[in-house]
Amino acid sequence: MAKFVNDPANFVTEMLEGLVRANPDTLEWDREYNIISAAGAANADRVRIVQGSGSGHEPAHVMAVGPGMLDAAVPGGVFAAPSMDQCLAGIRAMNGPKGVLYLVNNYQGDRMNWDMAQEMAEAEGIRVGKVVINDDVAVQDSTHTVGRRGVAGNFFVIKACGAASANGADLDTLVALGEKVNDNVRSMGVALSGCRPPAKQDPIFTLGENEVEFGVGIHGEPGRARIAMKSADELMTDVFELVAGDLPFNKGDRVALMVNGLGGTPISELYVLYRKAAELAEERGLTVVRNYVGEYCTALEMNGFSLTMLRLDDELEGLLDAPAQVPIRVF
Amino acid sequence: MAKFVNDPANFVTEMLEGLVRANPDTLEWDREYNIISAAGAANADRVRIVQGSGSGHEPAHVMAVGPGMLDAAVPGGVFAAPSMDQCLAGIRAMNGPKGVLYLVNNYQGDRMNWDMAQEMAEAEGIRVGKVVINDDVAVQDSTHTVGRRGVAGNFFVIKACGAASANGADLDTLVALGEKVNDNVRSMGVALSGCRPPAKQDPIFTLGENEVEFGVGIHGEPGRARIAMKSADELMTDVFELVAGDLPFNKGDRVALMVNGLGGTPISELYVLYRKAAELAEERGLTVVRNYVGEYCTALEMNGFSLTMLRLDDELEGLLDAPAQVPIRVF
Repeated sequence: MAKFVNDPANFVTEMLEGLVRANPDTLEWDREYNIISAAGAANADRVRIVQGSGSGHEPAHVMAVGPGMLDAAVPGGVFAAPSMDQCLAGIRAMNGPKGVLYLVNNYQGDRMNWDMAQEMAEAEGIRVGKVVINDDVAVQDSTHTVGRRGVAGNFFVIKACGAASANGADLDTLVALGEKVNDNVRSMGVALSGCRPPAKQDPIFTLGENEVEFGVGIHGEPGRARIAMKSADELMTDVFELVAGDLPFNKGDRVALMVNGLGGTPISELYVLYRKAAELAEERGLTVVRNYVGEYCTALEMNGFSLTMLRLDDELEGLLDAPAQVPIRVF
Repeated sequence: MAKFVNDPANFVTEMLEGLVRANPDTLEWDREYNIISAAGAANADRVRIVQGSGSGHEPAHVMAVGPGMLDAAVPGGVFAAPSMDQCLAGIRAMNGPKGVLYLVNNYQGDRMNWDMAQEMAEAEGIRVGKVVINDDVAVQDSTHTVGRRGVAGNFFVIKACGAASANGADLDTLVALGEKVNDNVRSMGVALSGCRPPAKQDPIFTLGENEVEFGVGIHGEPGRARIAMKSADELMTDVFELVAGDLPFNKGDRVALMVNGLGGTPISELYVLYRKAAELAEERGLTVVRNYVGEYCTALEMNGFSLTMLRLDDELEGLLDAPAQVPIRVF
């Protein structure tokens, strides 16, 4: 299957150009370092929040920039970490009297470049806070990762920290909050197909008609096993048990429940899956007080889904309810 | 590639169950006729708006139900018109002192069942208004259609009529408004893959690695031609010229521009395509005052996009700006 691309070398740039053309009043674009920022964010009197990671996971993270969410995103190439220079430029651009918070998903390349950028920024006297996200329970280590991978749970770290920053929280408070969200969120995904980065001729992996990559990573990293296809309910049950059993989520917990599409899955199927997830949560004695069904963190056109569950308290529930704005227009 | 389904016979029901579980406070579900309605819509003191069509096009139309949008949706099976009984039940459920407006995309099965339901409802003394949507410029007649097909332009009819109804417009005014939107909107789509209805073993059509169905219908109906793959910019240019040339859109026109994903296309690629569409609009002397990039009317997991363009005046621009609410949660 072909793709809608021009020169693959320009793919990310052209995507960003489209994004900024579609949001001329709310987004700004530093073309030198490919920094997408919310209009006016660099002058906001509060801690500013930046995230950088590989592209190909949209809407994460360039389409999560806006009031109450990220102040800026620093996208690398497709499935490639942003360079140290980009990360440093992102920190500098979002620097202010109250410091900068960066959020990084746990992949070696991303973490190394952000760590170096942090060191250099701190040598310039910039106050930098860091939150590492590693919510994926599928595997302990992975192709690009020591420790667990960071996936769609990242959305909740953005939403909570974005809301708290808007409320005036200081840098240390935001770091603690981000870590609290990460400590209370768990995810896992499955795929029915691979996907094809624009510059590659071949899919990152291939599956037979009745095979499932169970525990897939968002760059196509292997999961726990390649298993035979099951019904939607059976697959969701397996995933739910691993996610819920990991924290673990216990009877009486209030949760936010997310069924995230990996890019190529129809939203109708996501709702079929959500139906089962909500039923399983109820059976476990959990109260679902917020839900999210759609695409939040994808792997290009991969057909698959992930389940993310966040344990809430009054603080987190309030932060999820806070106003926010992103470039995506629903109506 | 497998799909996330249980018994295919229950696919639509399970999707609706998931949708209602995710929106318990805002949606109501009549299980007998599969009517999804906005909470309280049946008692609202205004003209109520209902749409019914085949499923598999989500978010159209069950996820377009809410304040300022549809009051109710009556989904048929996947790619199958709702039954006459469903349509009649939808009209009855939304009946009130000010009458009911139904919106129907131009497919023979849908129109026949809605026409019969309208006749029966009118025989019961219900005042019924109708707007037919036929925005697809690809072909004159098609597999299931005499005349042009109705596709994503339908979104703008919903948005405008939903806003006008909330503002208190009467039934005749809403019919005239819906027809005005339809008269000023044009669309066309292309596909890089078919899709597979849950109950079928095979895709509705297959394409070679470098083939494009140019002018595809949202049920896989053939377009104008099966052509060789081109770059994203070349494809968008071809589609844009046909859409813009059809109305035609002229220098000085204000427009709403939509790049709609057909279900399996990553949003990154949609923004690459939007970039080119916006550039072409500018070259033609059009002013893009509203834009929409994402999924509005899909064909399950089909990889493809459609372009929709609506000519605006002050009235339509104001209606697109009106508040609305749908079940899909972005943040």
